[in-house]
Amino acid sequence: MIKGACLYEGKAKRIYATEEPEVLWVEYKDDATAFNGEKKDVLEGKGRLNNEISSLIFTQLKEEGIESHFIERLSSNEQLVKKVSIVPIEVVVRNVAAGSLVKRLGFERGTVFAPPIVEFYYKDDDLGDPLMTEEHIRVMEIASVEEVEQLKSMALKVNEHLKRLFKNIGIQLVDFKLEFGRDHTGAILLADEISPDTCRLWDEKTGESFDKDLFRFQLGNLQDGYETILTRLGGHK
Amino acid sequence: MIKGACLYEGKAKRIYATEEPEVLWVEYKDDATAFNGEKKDVLEGKGRLNNEISSLIFTQLKEEGIESHFIERLSSNEQLVKKVSIVPIEVVVRNVAAGSLVKRLGFERGTVFAPPIVEFYYKDDDLGDPLMTEEHIRVMEIASVEEVEQLKSMALKVNEHLKRLFKNIGIQLVDFKLEFGRDHTGAILLADEISPDTCRLWDEKTGESFDKDLFRFQLGNLQDGYETILTRLGGHK
Repeated sequence: MIKGACLYEGKAKRIYATEEPEVLWVEYKDDATAFNGEKKDVLEGKGRLNNEISSLIFTQLKEEGIESHFIERLSSNEQLVKKVSIVPIEVVVRNVAAGSLVKRLGFERGTVFAPPIVEFYYKDDDLGDPLMTEEHIRVMEIASVEEVEQLKSMALKVNEHLKRLFKNIGIQLVDFKLEFGRDHTGAILLADEISPDTCRLWDEKTGESFDKDLFRFQLGNLQDGYETILTRLGGHK
Repeated sequence: MIKGACLYEGKAKRIYATEEPEVLWVEYKDDATAFNGEKKDVLEGKGRLNNEISSLIFTQLKEEGIESHFIERLSSNEQLVKKVSIVPIEVVVRNVAAGSLVKRLGFERGTVFAPPIVEFYYKDDDLGDPLMTEEHIRVMEIASVEEVEQLKSMALKVNEHLKRLFKNIGIQLVDFKLEFGRDHTGAILLADEISPDTCRLWDEKTGESFDKDLFRFQLGNLQDGYETILTRLGGHK
C-alpha cells in the first residue's frame, strides 16, 4: 500500500489517500486537545499509544463480530482503514455519571446507569459539539430514523463488549464516544478510534483515571496512564 | 374564595393558598427576568398583561377541549388555578428556528419546521434549565415513558390550537414553553402560564417581536408589545 496525499488533518490524526480509492492511511498525531481545542499540548508518544490501543480494540471487536472501518495496523502510529463518510453525530454511551452529565444535569459523579444512557452530540467544532435530540437529527436530516436506531443499537453492542474487555483488565468503562461513517454502499460502519482519548476509564480498585481527564484536569501524566491501558490489554511497551 | 398564606414566590408569580386544599390563588408580578435571572427589571403592568393574556388563552383552550390548571380570572393580575405538583420538565415546541436553537445548533433563524420540534429542558434554575433527552428523563425518574409521550402529544395538540389562535390575529407562533403538573389523582394537567413571556410571537407582516425578546434584547417597549397581543386577542386595555 502506498501513502498518498494528505486528505485531511484533524486534531488528533492525519488522513492520507492510498492507491485504493476505498482505503485510507491514518497517522495518529501526538497532539492533545481538550475543551473544544481551548487546551492544547504535544505529548510525545500519545499518537503511538492511541494507534496501538485502537488497533487492539478494533481487532478484538472484529473477533466478536463487530465490524469497523479498521483494516490493519501498519506501524506504531499508523493504520489502514476503509474510507467512510463520517456521520456528524458523536454517539456517547454512559455507564457511570461523569463529565458533562454531572456539570450540565447535576448527576452525582459515579452514579451507575443500568441500562446505560445513549446520547447524541452534533459533531461541529464551531458550535462546541452540542448535545442534540433525535428530533434535532430528524430536522437536520443528517441521519434517518432507521439509522439513528442503528447507531444506538450498535453503540450499545460495542458497550457490552468494551465493558467486558475492560473489566477483564480491572478497568471500569465509565463512558465513551463513538463515531460512525457510511461506506460507498451507504452502510453504517463503526469508525474513528476507541482509545483513552475517547473513553473514560477508571481503575476498578483505586478509581484512578487512565484517560484524557489526566490531561483535561492535570490529574497526572497522560502517557503513563495510556501506557497502563496498553500494557493491561496485552500490548507491548 | 379567600386568599391565604403565600406558599411560593417565583420569578414572575406569587402563589397563595385558599380555603380549598386543591385550589391556589396566583398573583402575577411585574418583575421581568431573562437569561436565567441575569437580566432583571420591574415593568409596570407586565403582571396584568400576562394574567389577562394567559386567562384568555387557557379559556379558549378549554373551549376547544384542552383542560389546564386554570379555573378563573379573579382580577387584572390574579387568577385561581387547580393545585398541581409541577413536573420539572419544560416542554418547548418550535415551529420556526429562533433563540437557543440558532445559537446552540446553528439553525438559520426563521427556518420553518413541519412537523414542529418538541424539546425537553430540565427545570432547574441552578443548572440554567439545560436541554435534556428522553434518556435523561428516564434515568432521573422525573416522568415515566408514558408520561413523556403524553407531554409530547399534549404539547403538539396545544400547538395546533395556539398556532391557529395567533394566525387569526396576524401573529406567527414561533415557539413556546409549556409546564405540566400532576393533580392529586396523579393525572397530568397543563399548568403555569401561556403568555408573551413563554411564547415567541412575530407579526406575520413585519416580523416584529411581541414577546419577551423585546426585553431580552432591548428590541422595544415590552408593555406595548404585550398590549398589542392582548388587544388583538380581544382583551381590554
